[in-house]
Amino acid sequence: MKSTSRDIRIRNCFSVLRHLIADYPTSRQYLARETDLSVATVSNLVSDLIELGVVVEVGLERSGGGRPRALLAPNAGSGALIGIDVASTYVKFEAYDLTLTVLCRIEEHVDLSEDMPEQLLDHIATGMAAVREHLGGRPILGIGVSLPGQVDVAGGISVFAPNWNWHDVAFKRLLTERLELDVPVYLDNSLKTVTAGELWFGDGRGVDRLAVVLLGTGVGVGLAFGGDLYRGASNSAGEWGHATVDPDGPRCRCGRNGCIEAYVGAPAILRRWGELAGRPVEEQAQEKAMETLAQAWKAGEDSAVRTVEAIARDLAVGVANLVNIVNPELVVLTGWVTGVLGEALLPELERHLPERVLNAALKALRVKLDEQSRNMVILGAAALALEGHLNLINTVGSRSRP
Amino acid sequence: MKSTSRDIRIRNCFSVLRHLIADYPTSRQYLARETDLSVATVSNLVSDLIELGVVVEVGLERSGGGRPRALLAPNAGSGALIGIDVASTYVKFEAYDLTLTVLCRIEEHVDLSEDMPEQLLDHIATGMAAVREHLGGRPILGIGVSLPGQVDVAGGISVFAPNWNWHDVAFKRLLTERLELDVPVYLDNSLKTVTAGELWFGDGRGVDRLAVVLLGTGVGVGLAFGGDLYRGASNSAGEWGHATVDPDGPRCRCGRNGCIEAYVGAPAILRRWGELAGRPVEEQAQEKAMETLAQAWKAGEDSAVRTVEAIARDLAVGVANLVNIVNPELVVLTGWVTGVLGEALLPELERHLPERVLNAALKALRVKLDEQSRNMVILGAAALALEGHLNLINTVGSRSRP
Repeated sequence: MKSTSRDIRIRNCFSVLRHLIADYPTSRQYLARETDLSVATVSNLVSDLIELGVVVEVGLERSGGGRPRALLAPNAGSGALIGIDVASTYVKFEAYDLTLTVLCRIEEHVDLSEDMPEQLLDHIATGMAAVREHLGGRPILGIGVSLPGQVDVAGGISVFAPNWNWHDVAFKRLLTERLELDVPVYLDNSLKTVTAGELWFGDGRGVDRLAVVLLGTGVGVGLAFGGDLYRGASNSAGEWGHATVDPDGPRCRCGRNGCIEAYVGAPAILRRWGELAGRPVEEQAQEKAMETLAQAWKAGEDSAVRTVEAIARDLAVGVANLVNIVNPELVVLTGWVTGVLGEALLPELERHLPERVLNAALKALRVKLDEQSRNMVILGAAALALEGHLNLINTVGSRSRP
Repeated sequence: MKSTSRDIRIRNCFSVLRHLIADYPTSRQYLARETDLSVATVSNLVSDLIELGVVVEVGLERSGGGRPRALLAPNAGSGALIGIDVASTYVKFEAYDLTLTVLCRIEEHVDLSEDMPEQLLDHIATGMAAVREHLGGRPILGIGVSLPGQVDVAGGISVFAPNWNWHDVAFKRLLTERLELDVPVYLDNSLKTVTAGELWFGDGRGVDRLAVVLLGTGVGVGLAFGGDLYRGASNSAGEWGHATVDPDGPRCRCGRNGCIEAYVGAPAILRRWGELAGRPVEEQAQEKAMETLAQAWKAGEDSAVRTVEAIARDLAVGVANLVNIVNPELVVLTGWVTGVLGEALLPELERHLPERVLNAALKALRVKLDEQSRNMVILGAAALALEGHLNLINTVGSRSRP
């Protein structure tokens, strides 16, 4: 509950850098306007960021008659940020410079049978070797890792990963030892990394109360308030996928009945389509089956249209519960199911929300699809590494300007 | 999204004063320990609070060998805070000094037919005249008013009060004009005031992620994060009473089906008891009927026991949804139904929660009954007035210590 001026400094520094990354080159004056901070405060923060090597001056801008203003940009020549997405069937890597340009992209295929921490670590080691190769001598500022399931951020522990049946695996320590890393590693789950991605580089920038609804094989929500990721008491906030829609509803893979995930998770969508179409849908290759559904919907095929309608109606109940409790100003739909089916789902979802959301909350709400041009889970993992790096700012600042 | 050092100063000032009110007389050193702030920071804040007339030095404490430490207390001799709870059948007033001692308590009976703003204002004027009489010449620092329904805090407007069918009533302006007030008035709804009460004077003190579940004729939730009331984008966060438990469930008075309020609001509880007992329950006098139910439960009467079991099971679904999304460390049950039936409901609720809450969130969670020794709605309304008064601290501080 303690608040310090350091917290504020870091938070304002995040805000300045988010705007700078979104729109550079630009001036201190422009950043002050965008962040609602004074020019003096922005100038102070920018000095810190320049000292840390995160921001550089790249030229001068003529202003109307007055002194030319210095133009700022993220330092493309500084160290790299690494984002890693560890899942049941792949490990994906991306390296970025501070302008968020992708320096390299690596993917390791993982067999479903490889469920031991050592096996995943092997893949990470192989992938990281390739990343380092690409980077040449460029230093690494930090590594963000997205893991499935429940993560203890402070301890760097995978508390529970249902897909591998992991319990209390000290993954950060194992990773650091296995790769002999001397750079900071930040662990979290994909709900949190994707939300960090939206906050830093997506639609969440500048949004005070944000909910990111992740639709995939599993479903969940990432929350952010005042520009900060909201983790809850045990980093398990946003387990909306297991909020109940109907206590007597269908069985969920978590063992409970009537969870929202049992209605709108990818397997449930495909099962529903199978029922309405009167033929089984191949669930093994669910990405492909989902694309077929999207095409059938586009072609106006009756069972596909009715499937989308039914799923959107159930999704509306879950999203409405979220909105009635949290009253966000923006809900972003993301995840691979959104990528494939979002265009079909959104209008139906918006049609049903007013039936379930109170007026005042509805008036304050926007719902939109993530633009999906970047991989937000990986980019967000890198954002956590960037946040960690920016936490060095205060020590640098206090050393140099007493 | 802007954060300023003023925000922090005010937040830390709230924290110091909350601890001081809870446990005085005490020293700057003790407050520093309790708030996790430095002694220097606490001393600065205490100087501001003394200057504002909110805190006084009341003596010296001998410490082990060192210099005696000054003992601090809230200034019982300063101005009064007024809390007002405006409802369909009453207007209740309490005046407090800054130690939260009740200086006077007034209640005005309101007829259900009196549903015009002017009629409520008449009752407030009468009650406030009695309050002023009691206070003698003591000045008033601020007045907090709890209204039913949706409130626009910044505008001081009752956006929607379903019980009176009010829409966009500029209640704060009307009140200020009618009473010719020259003190600040703070308007909010009872979900928010009761939560402010818990934060300042109740179980919420020092809790980082708090949910206050209000069980009454209507039901709802107040949320607070980092010691601050969480209002959401349009001050309608916590409308948990209208989150859906079952889309095909019973009709709610909001016009939707299957809202949690349609299961666990007072009328629903009494209706259920009537069904299980096989005889109608008098809903007109629901407070009395609820007490009869509580007595029947205590006596082990079968229909009463089964009613409590059924209500607790439904309540568990709603509370679990809240906990899975928000992951609070404390849920406090409050409201008049909790006062009457909480002792019966809590053990059953705790029995059902593990069926619906994810493990990590469950481990981090405590659920408890509000102690109900104070009227938290009114006390919380007064807390909003106190918060408003403390916002003067910065101007005082910056004037006097350049």
